Amino acid sequence: MDLRIPSAFSGPLLEMERQFLDHATAIERWFREQWHGHIPPFYGSVDLRNAGFKLAPIDMNLFPGGFNNLAPISLPLCIQAAQAAVERLCSDASRLLLIPENHTRNQFYLQNVARLATILRLTGLEVRLGSLLPEIVSPTTLMLSDGTSLTLEPLERRGNHLGVAGFDSCAILLNNDLSGGVPGILKGLDEQWLIPPLHAGWHVRRKSRHAAVYERVLQTFSEAIGIDPWRIGPAFRVCGGIDFQERAGEECLAAQVDALLADIRRKYREYGIDDEAFVVVKADAGTYGMGVMTVKDASEVVGLNRRQRNKMAVVKEGLAVEEVIIQEGVRTFETIDGAAAEPVVYTMDHYVVGGFYRAHTARGSDENLNAPGMEFRSQAFDTPCCTPDCRQSLDAAQNRFYVYGVVARLALLAASVEIEETDPDNAAAEAVPAP
Amino acid sequence: MDLRIPSAFSGPLLEMERQFLDHATAIERWFREQWHGHIPPFYGSVDLRNAGFKLAPIDMNLFPGGFNNLAPISLPLCIQAAQAAVERLCSDASRLLLIPENHTRNQFYLQNVARLATILRLTGLEVRLGSLLPEIVSPTTLMLSDGTSLTLEPLERRGNHLGVAGFDSCAILLNNDLSGGVPGILKGLDEQWLIPPLHAGWHVRRKSRHAAVYERVLQTFSEAIGIDPWRIGPAFRVCGGIDFQERAGEECLAAQVDALLADIRRKYREYGIDDEAFVVVKADAGTYGMGVMTVKDASEVVGLNRRQRNKMAVVKEGLAVEEVIIQEGVRTFETIDGAAAEPVVYTMDHYVVGGFYRAHTARGSDENLNAPGMEFRSQAFDTPCCTPDCRQSLDAAQNRFYVYGVVARLALLAASVEIEETDPDNAAAEAVPAP
Repeated sequence: MDLRIPSAFSGPLLEMERQFLDHATAIERWFREQWHGHIPPFYGSVDLRNAGFKLAPIDMNLFPGGFNNLAPISLPLCIQAAQAAVERLCSDASRLLLIPENHTRNQFYLQNVARLATILRLTGLEVRLGSLLPEIVSPTTLMLSDGTSLTLEPLERRGNHLGVAGFDSCAILLNNDLSGGVPGILKGLDEQWLIPPLHAGWHVRRKSRHAAVYERVLQTFSEAIGIDPWRIGPAFRVCGGIDFQERAGEECLAAQVDALLADIRRKYREYGIDDEAFVVVKADAGTYGMGVMTVKDASEVVGLNRRQRNKMAVVKEGLAVEEVIIQEGVRTFETIDGAAAEPVVYTMDHYVVGGFYRAHTARGSDENLNAPGMEFRSQAFDTPCCTPDCRQSLDAAQNRFYVYGVVARLALLAASVEIEETDPDNAAAEAVPAP
Repeated sequence: MDLRIPSAFSGPLLEMERQFLDHATAIERWFREQWHGHIPPFYGSVDLRNAGFKLAPIDMNLFPGGFNNLAPISLPLCIQAAQAAVERLCSDASRLLLIPENHTRNQFYLQNVARLATILRLTGLEVRLGSLLPEIVSPTTLMLSDGTSLTLEPLERRGNHLGVAGFDSCAILLNNDLSGGVPGILKGLDEQWLIPPLHAGWHVRRKSRHAAVYERVLQTFSEAIGIDPWRIGPAFRVCGGIDFQERAGEECLAAQVDALLADIRRKYREYGIDDEAFVVVKADAGTYGMGVMTVKDASEVVGLNRRQRNKMAVVKEGLAVEEVIIQEGVRTFETIDGAAAEPVVYTMDHYVVGGFYRAHTARGSDENLNAPGMEFRSQAFDTPCCTPDCRQSLDAAQNRFYVYGVVARLALLAASVEIEETDPDNAAAEAVPAP
């Protein structure tokens, strides 16, 4: 495997890595203090982009589906972190119901579920899988291509408890992102721990709210550690009242795209970056890489053709897109065997447990790589993300991955604050201004 | 590296491993429940012996000195576990004073200290090293043969605070086992966290008390999981009033040795084990492998010659031995490149973070391997201790190491209870019968 960052960009990158390494102890202390006041999400994954002059998280997923893609070194870290998470969230639990996505034919996703179940069992939990699929009417064992198997069982609602036959648990882990809303069977479960909480699902979550919290987290972090926030955060804008099919909201979208592009170009001049600015327009509640579009000029979002409109108008579960986030585009300058690649960092509790590269041979460095045809490469992540070593060169993998781990944890912390602030049971949440 | 267990003994071993693997979820749940009520020691190491028919911890150290011997895979696990330990024990701490042993010429020990400091810094603690050595009168930097360095500083006592110049910390980590008693400079530090607490030092600790608590832990574990406690615990007896130089206490010792050997032989007959019983006589407060003697017949402890008496009479720091523990001998049937070898499992917080083999080419399988000439081999522990895999064979390294990790954690739990029960500030400690 040939993993590369072109040397032309390594100057600013190395300078930034030097700052992270020099401040590693202060950074870790800062995180420890932050986690004092916030509950880390049970698990998460963060997509990063490294442009050489800027390293930013571009997406934060609270229902990660690629545990099967992690390198073997990650398994003990996952088990250890999951033990910490279980102790924190549901320490009395002895059983856990895991509710996966409704993909019974996606071998890779099912291997992810099997891996998750293995990790959870090794924290001392009896784990059963409850399916939301109506066609699962009796226990159904699926053989997986990696030699493992898993058994999906029909969910059974008994009063305000949800379980499977003969199995009642005090904790329910969702690996289903609720894009289509909360199914009735999951409502009113006030005696069971739902992890993550329902309002972390994509029926409620907005990328723009996460981005707004991330900006606040970044501000605090930058003031404490002295790292330029522009180097590690993407600027963004929001546009509501969109209806791509009806061509409603195009003007607002074009105006916001234009303004953000102008901001980015100004920053590029300020930092002496000779690069073409671009933005990425995304459905604000979108996932699975759906509803994503790279834009270099505001005119591109006016008068979309039918194909473009169809692509942007609906996301997972056929939901109509009404709001979009316009995010500063961050080119990835990493390649694997010549294909554009971006790191995806996995977390459990507040620990980075591993990651992999998402690579796509048919996509450019400024395009969305989360698309059919993508490949996952875990080999580089044989190197852990928590072992910076000043004796090694700045571009040694363990130093680069430490920086990736820190930036991913900033996004994780933002997700934690975001979940707190959007909690319908949290009175303080009311006081939070909309992003 | 050639790591072996002879196949003649693998029958009972494999049967026991099968039980551990079949009950992995229940075992992990049991540990989770136990840790609910007990605080795990910050760090520890457990010496194990695998005789093929029996797998037992033979020593539990609360001041481990071999972090430098752990395989690279252990470093991220150590950092993650140390973060959990710091959060649990001194979550507000931003600084930590580390007090090592007084070995300034032992390169390996100093590398252990340097590794520990690295781990602690990566949990976000500013770490300085305070030395108890009177000759350290100013900051003294020692270059280590692995390319790292460390700086020892003179301790400074300011009122009831201990620090080094310009450095006050709310936590002090001892990597000094206090065999020679508590130095005055460490007394009365009632505003700083001492980790481990002073009474975990060898001036107070007794192997026999640990062994007694281990028996209780084993009883509970065996009842919960259904594993025969005889398979995973060494029997023991205690003898006080010993003075090897004056030949006082020889009769008591001989009687206890005889009784324990009879017990072991009876068990061997019961389990159909065709092996020669032996016991190990150890100074009850001994460490560093000093004051240890293998005995196969009671007559061997009567009329010791001068050399034997000298060997048994004093341990580390020249302390006279007054009490001994007589422990059931557990042969090690593991060899590395032909040398007798025993696994040493390392823990931080309640996690197993790695280990290594202690091997000795000049010692037999029934002798103490913790002696000059021993070698440390970490390669086998490239395999983590928390990832059992039922799809693999029972004697696959990850399955064997899982069992080692469980038995080591039983000893760790016993150490936790032991520290609680010997806490002079713990009223309940009074009620505990002497072992």
